[in-house]
Amino acid sequence: METVEERLRGLGLALPPLMDPPGGRPTLRLARRSGNLLYLSGNGPLRDGQIAYRGKVGRDLTVEEGYAAARLTGLNLLAVIKDALGDLERVAGFVKSLGFINSAPGFTQQPAVLNGFADLILDLYGEERGLHARSAVGMAELPWDAAVEIETIVEIADGA
Amino acid sequence: METVEERLRGLGLALPPLMDPPGGRPTLRLARRSGNLLYLSGNGPLRDGQIAYRGKVGRDLTVEEGYAAARLTGLNLLAVIKDALGDLERVAGFVKSLGFINSAPGFTQQPAVLNGFADLILDLYGEERGLHARSAVGMAELPWDAAVEIETIVEIADGA
Amino acid sequence: METVEERLRGLGLALPPLMDPPGGRPTLRLARRSGNLLYLSGNGPLRDGQIAYRGKVGRDLTVEEGYAAARLTGLNLLAVIKDALGDLERVAGFVKSLGFINSAPGFTQQPAVLNGFADLILDLYGEERGLHARSAVGMAELPWDAAVEIETIVEIADGA
Repeated sequence: METVEERLRGLGLALPPLMDPPGGRPTLRLARRSGNLLYLSGNGPLRDGQIAYRGKVGRDLTVEEGYAAARLTGLNLLAVIKDALGDLERVAGFVKSLGFINSAPGFTQQPAVLNGFADLILDLYGEERGLHARSAVGMAELPWDAAVEIETIVEIADGA
Repeated sequence: METVEERLRGLGLALPPLMDPPGGRPTLRLARRSGNLLYLSGNGPLRDGQIAYRGKVGRDLTVEEGYAAARLTGLNLLAVIKDALGDLERVAGFVKSLGFINSAPGFTQQPAVLNGFADLILDLYGEERGLHARSAVGMAELPWDAAVEIETIVEIADGA
Repeated sequence: METVEERLRGLGLALPPLMDPPGGRPTLRLARRSGNLLYLSGNGPLRDGQIAYRGKVGRDLTVEEGYAAARLTGLNLLAVIKDALGDLERVAGFVKSLGFINSAPGFTQQPAVLNGFADLILDLYGEERGLHARSAVGMAELPWDAAVEIETIVEIADGA
């Protein structure tokens, strides 16, 4: 059976390197385990250490660009999961995600944007492990003017 | 002792049917269980498959209408719980909810709006099971211009 | 070894009294336990029963004032934890926080504001217990025009 990493490569994708947080003492963990749940910090559409999608969806960015931003955010979240668990196969399933979409006035298609994340997870993990509860909401502002910020909770496989 | 469903009927309320998600492959679960917790996707003030309350509270809608929207959202969340657990009695208690209120500039009574949800849960489940931790916040935009979006986590009764 | 409360006093800080919710029947719990997790309701920069920091960061308040608001919110959250657990030492660790920052148009430094909370927790609990997963996002409006609202999940020590 194909592994999640093989599927990732099959889609022409690669996990981005984890960014070192800016200098000074740390202020967060990118992921924090409690029991068999792994809570991930809000992440964004980072590529080569830069925010690749900035601005408000519905004005500065199209829905399609927002979707791409959510998909790229998913890769960054997967890189955090791999770093925390050592192996993407140790994910028993995605439990819950919350998608914050930087939204222009009148923009109301936040779920279509968050689908960029949800579809990636579904492609990689399949319905049983990949389909999860979620909310998508429209934000006034986001850090560094990122187009999206997504946080998620994943369940770690027993014995892992 | 009266059941939750009997109390619901006593209030003249009924659980709405679950909406089938729009065509194409699914992108979410309305509820995802992990351990003895059930995580519910953000839900809205749906009636007969339509968003019954649209727009921003404090401009398009009064606080009272926002309250009614949160209460209606509660019915939709209860329908999801019943579908997931089979019986509303299997809820050991509500743990946490997060209420996103579509807010006009200067509108700061988000908790009074979310009370529409909290009061319904309290009426149905009583203080021990119904009172829970919560946050209410003011959003720039919400999907389909819904007046509110609410997500919640419920604890499932032992042995259930 | 210094206790968390001793460190708090060493910083010249004290836990504020818990506010009684406004009259009428209760609509929330300030904290709700499930398993070994304690979920806290969104809290704000309360001092002597008043919101001490109102308005939007980046317009009405500087980043430094926003940071102070997040730190003060942390004290209010710690007061809730102490009330719920009896002793601040019973915290095994902070798991996840979500910081809602009341943001002026164009303000994108939400993480620098939330650091006011994160740094306080780190000062009191150290890296092992204090560093946690988090998200910081920019809100259109918040209850009572508070500058920040923060919710958090803490893990309770085994046997506690």
